[in-house]
Amino acid sequence: MKGIEPFGDRLLARVDEKHSCSVVGLDPDYARIPEVFKGPANSSGGRSFRCMADSIIAFNRCIIDVAAPLVPAVKPQIAYYEMYGLEGMRAFVETVSYAKEKGLLVIGDVKRNDIGSTAGAYSTAYLGGVAMGEGTVETGFDVDAVTVNAFLGWDGVRPFMEDAVRYGKGVFILVKTSNPSSAEFQDLRLADGGAPLYEWVARKVHEWGQNAVGRRGYSSLGAVVGATYPAHARALRSLMPRAIFLVPGYGAQGGAGKDIVACFNEDGYGALVNASRSINYPHGQDLSISLEEFKQRVREAVLAMNADIDGSLRSAGRKG
Amino acid sequence: MKGIEPFGDRLLARVDEKHSCSVVGLDPDYARIPEVFKGPANSSGGRSFRCMADSIIAFNRCIIDVAAPLVPAVKPQIAYYEMYGLEGMRAFVETVSYAKEKGLLVIGDVKRNDIGSTAGAYSTAYLGGVAMGEGTVETGFDVDAVTVNAFLGWDGVRPFMEDAVRYGKGVFILVKTSNPSSAEFQDLRLADGGAPLYEWVARKVHEWGQNAVGRRGYSSLGAVVGATYPAHARALRSLMPRAIFLVPGYGAQGGAGKDIVACFNEDGYGALVNASRSINYPHGQDLSISLEEFKQRVREAVLAMNADIDGSLRSAGRKG
Repeated sequence: MKGIEPFGDRLLARVDEKHSCSVVGLDPDYARIPEVFKGPANSSGGRSFRCMADSIIAFNRCIIDVAAPLVPAVKPQIAYYEMYGLEGMRAFVETVSYAKEKGLLVIGDVKRNDIGSTAGAYSTAYLGGVAMGEGTVETGFDVDAVTVNAFLGWDGVRPFMEDAVRYGKGVFILVKTSNPSSAEFQDLRLADGGAPLYEWVARKVHEWGQNAVGRRGYSSLGAVVGATYPAHARALRSLMPRAIFLVPGYGAQGGAGKDIVACFNEDGYGALVNASRSINYPHGQDLSISLEEFKQRVREAVLAMNADIDGSLRSAGRKG
Repeated sequence: MKGIEPFGDRLLARVDEKHSCSVVGLDPDYARIPEVFKGPANSSGGRSFRCMADSIIAFNRCIIDVAAPLVPAVKPQIAYYEMYGLEGMRAFVETVSYAKEKGLLVIGDVKRNDIGSTAGAYSTAYLGGVAMGEGTVETGFDVDAVTVNAFLGWDGVRPFMEDAVRYGKGVFILVKTSNPSSAEFQDLRLADGGAPLYEWVARKVHEWGQNAVGRRGYSSLGAVVGATYPAHARALRSLMPRAIFLVPGYGAQGGAGKDIVACFNEDGYGALVNASRSINYPHGQDLSISLEEFKQRVREAVLAMNADIDGSLRSAGRKG
């Protein structure tokens, strides 16, 4: 661990540098990408995953160029790369690498989960690495943090946490998600005490993350908490004071700045707010938008989000 | 849907044809693969993901050749491919394609999960496909069935089920896993009725799968039920009479034929039993094993598993 900066500290440094706790989701849906990013082969019916992946890379690089000075991190959702097969995974790798080059942290929204040794293999893929001989270690899809589904319990989470501590990486556990049917299991009341399941998961996140708290007071183990349920956020914030909340659901999914204030601590830190669709597709159905106009709209969307969150935090007295 | 054979029927036809309900896991760990599958570059210190992936492909093809006449399906665990990066994913694609060529069904053990539209992207990657123009659809990682973690509720499962029905594919929901800490969340007692959470998940699996039951009485929606908890299996079998159980944990994880009888229905169907390590690594630490000897050991391990399960079912009167 010597010399490795814990994830919480690395992240807060970027938040301070960019004056933002916004995260730009990178969820490329080929059908919604402006024509300007598509080569001639794509439009002439000669489509292939390779062409699609090239368009996705160009599209993401453009968004990253605009976002890099304005936000601390991006969050590619890997499902939108896996759907384009091996070429899509190549686009994921190139996107991650470009974002890092531009000084952004990368949160791989992978929601991986499995039992002990297999969870270890996933962790190796995203946070750790494979020994290649002569002391070198190579990582297949090397990101700064991942999302993890903890339904399998601690031995499915531990391998990720071990790599997180060793390599200065972060882990975000799904606690309360932002979709309509998240209540189906997550809100079930437990016989022992009557609290909902998601609060029990939150207690475990706090417990599991206690030994990974950095200099600035935040753990390498964070939590995914949907912005669509601000009432839940308050309870969860007090159950997990050391956890950084990754808050999806801002923008297109309905959350707004005032809804997410409860996800922050009194110090004005403790949450990252993600928006994907509102920043990836500010052009709506207008696929013939020009490159300059697209860049402008992406920039406006990021700035508006930063201002909305910043204003809401100031109104609530959580920012000096 | 016209002309598409439901997954339950496709699977039972293979079970009848092979006289087996065993599934061979394909969980390649490069460090445990016999030297005979490794090229000169691999041993000389000039390692790369590409060399490792080539070894994995050769290793898997050998196991598939041996297993194809003896079992209905294989189950590659995708974490063991993702850990070798893009090259590992290439090995996954080649393994899936070779297994299908040899007449095996392929269950992608991917445990994917996300909210609505993103769950749809995962389903597109593994069960559905991307429209490529001119009426063709291409699927990135085209398997016959996947495992899914349902912690996010029905809108995270529905896209998989829609593709399953449309394309004759299968979905297995994690209900009760085989790892030691699975009790941490899955066994929590619920306030409403006092049953454990995993039984509540089981009820949902039954409900969600009711409209996808094939001619032979089994649904396209199955359940992952760990063999390490035979007492649970009995209760779950009665809660999900139409579900095919995918039972991991046979062999190396401690389960035996007698433990998994409760996963089957009275008709002798209704469960697939998976073994990975005992069949992938019958050579233990002896990496210098010859090709012929390795094949022989794999064959013996598969035959022993088939005989153990068959004998246990006959003893229990569940097979004619």
